[in-house]
Amino acid sequence: MKITIKDIAEISGVSTTTVSQILNNKGQRFSEETKRRVMKAVEENDYNPDYFAKNMINRESKTVGMIVPDVTDLFFSKVIEGVEAYLTKKDYMILLCNSNHSNEMEKNYIKQLLNRSVAGVILASPNAMELETSLKSSPYILIDRGINTRVEGNLLVKEYEGSYESVQYLIDAGHKKIGMLTNESGYYEMTDRYRAYVQCLKDNKLIYHGEYIEDGPVTIEGGYEAAKRLLERTDITALCCGNDQMAIGTYRAAYELGLKIPEDLSVIGFDDLEISSYLNPPLTTVAQPAFEIGYTAATYLFQSINSPEQKIPNRTFETEFIVRGSTTTVDKKK
Amino acid sequence: MKITIKDIAEISGVSTTTVSQILNNKGQRFSEETKRRVMKAVEENDYNPDYFAKNMINRESKTVGMIVPDVTDLFFSKVIEGVEAYLTKKDYMILLCNSNHSNEMEKNYIKQLLNRSVAGVILASPNAMELETSLKSSPYILIDRGINTRVEGNLLVKEYEGSYESVQYLIDAGHKKIGMLTNESGYYEMTDRYRAYVQCLKDNKLIYHGEYIEDGPVTIEGGYEAAKRLLERTDITALCCGNDQMAIGTYRAAYELGLKIPEDLSVIGFDDLEISSYLNPPLTTVAQPAFEIGYTAATYLFQSINSPEQKIPNRTFETEFIVRGSTTTVDKKK
Repeated sequence: MKITIKDIAEISGVSTTTVSQILNNKGQRFSEETKRRVMKAVEENDYNPDYFAKNMINRESKTVGMIVPDVTDLFFSKVIEGVEAYLTKKDYMILLCNSNHSNEMEKNYIKQLLNRSVAGVILASPNAMELETSLKSSPYILIDRGINTRVEGNLLVKEYEGSYESVQYLIDAGHKKIGMLTNESGYYEMTDRYRAYVQCLKDNKLIYHGEYIEDGPVTIEGGYEAAKRLLERTDITALCCGNDQMAIGTYRAAYELGLKIPEDLSVIGFDDLEISSYLNPPLTTVAQPAFEIGYTAATYLFQSINSPEQKIPNRTFETEFIVRGSTTTVDKKK
Repeated sequence: MKITIKDIAEISGVSTTTVSQILNNKGQRFSEETKRRVMKAVEENDYNPDYFAKNMINRESKTVGMIVPDVTDLFFSKVIEGVEAYLTKKDYMILLCNSNHSNEMEKNYIKQLLNRSVAGVILASPNAMELETSLKSSPYILIDRGINTRVEGNLLVKEYEGSYESVQYLIDAGHKKIGMLTNESGYYEMTDRYRAYVQCLKDNKLIYHGEYIEDGPVTIEGGYEAAKRLLERTDITALCCGNDQMAIGTYRAAYELGLKIPEDLSVIGFDDLEISSYLNPPLTTVAQPAFEIGYTAATYLFQSINSPEQKIPNRTFETEFIVRGSTTTVDKKK
């Protein structure tokens, strides 16, 4: 049986409020004798005042809420790992919330996190703008995703530049029929990657073909389905996938349609998941530092919790274009 | 600014203890007038008593701790998804702990979780036996892994039967030189899968070759390194991988060594991750229900929290052998 504050109060013959105040260094008004008695009971019974009880006085839960769209998404599990790696050093823990991309769930989670007096929130959501009002009473960091109105605590990635570089690479390799897999459910980075694609074609005086674009969920299966539709109706020679997971799905679609990568189809991803360099052929992709993003988010949130008067920094992460075996040059006549 | 219990106490002219007791239905000794005044202040100020404060009376944190060896492991992220899916329906949240396979970290996490008065713990660890003593004061469920001394609350998978079936399949397809990738860091299921391999060879009167076995971390990279060593020193025609992630690494190793799957090497995994059916060729594997395991663990833990007098059930999950494109028959002369 765990010793509770009530037990300590009974043993030392005082109220739980008295015990609580003495343990939280707010017991000035009590006699030395009372304090001694309480501390003796605490020590003898190996009582460990828990954070929930402490919190009533300190409002310090040493707990941080984290909301992600999909905990099984390989990018986000790496971000979570980064957040955890920093917070655990500070004796903070994560209340993890899996929103399944649902705005309704996100709202509900924020309410529940605030009910639990979390010290702060890390939020990865396409719906950030709408959610910010409900977060006003707590420090928070917006991760990676989200058009938002905030001037601090935003962690962004150079999506546009990264995507532009990959499309330019394909054009330089002779590709003219370049497709793209996108996702139109509001994720800003997908929009940014798509905008870069459009602009890069334009800058290179290539015609934009609406039928070269296909939309789908940002998952392996989503990429598979989208790529299949796209490859069945067009004769593109290269495909920029919304992320690495969609690229993995594309490998499967190409295989089923008898297209060889990269001979018949060059494929580029976005993320550089661990698995991507192990694919057959290894995936050419735009790397973004998922672990570092998580680690930085946790660092900034911790600063914000402990120095609320200071402004939270913003940070934009660079991408890196990594050429592997899934892309090749194409006969210019094609 | 968030309204606190102190604010409510001030507004209604009573102590925080009084507010707390009234809100927790322990305010019988207070007058109707006092109760009315407190409830009015609560309603008018939209005060939401937080779980931490409530907990001091109720010891009900509506929070569950979950410790996994690796949050980026594709199997565990699916288990977490299952746990979350059940608990969120019950308004419970998960404090997620990533132990990095470290026993030291696990011990520290358990301490921290108990400090935070979690309602229960879900533990996935190879070190379960040792950890159980520290968990005695809390309901807990052991997930999937772990030789342990407990007679209830164990969720296991038919590792042995699943592995045996896969080795028998290869033998029936004519393979005689069958290798295995294992992990010797204490995960019981890896030991079970290995034991089944040894027994199946024996039952089929095939000679066991120590050099056909290679050990490595249960990751993609671990599988890649182990498979490379194994394939360089032997001429095996089939390989049973410790899990699907190791199989993904094996694909890469085989590719680099100029071995075609399945023509030169049949490969079998264990888990059936989402990605496995999208590999090229799609992976033959032993499926285990990761989401269902997590969901069941959460269900049992919830029961255990709310009906501590009842025994927690044990459950053993079936596996399913799924034949895809990574295995083929072999010339019996080989």
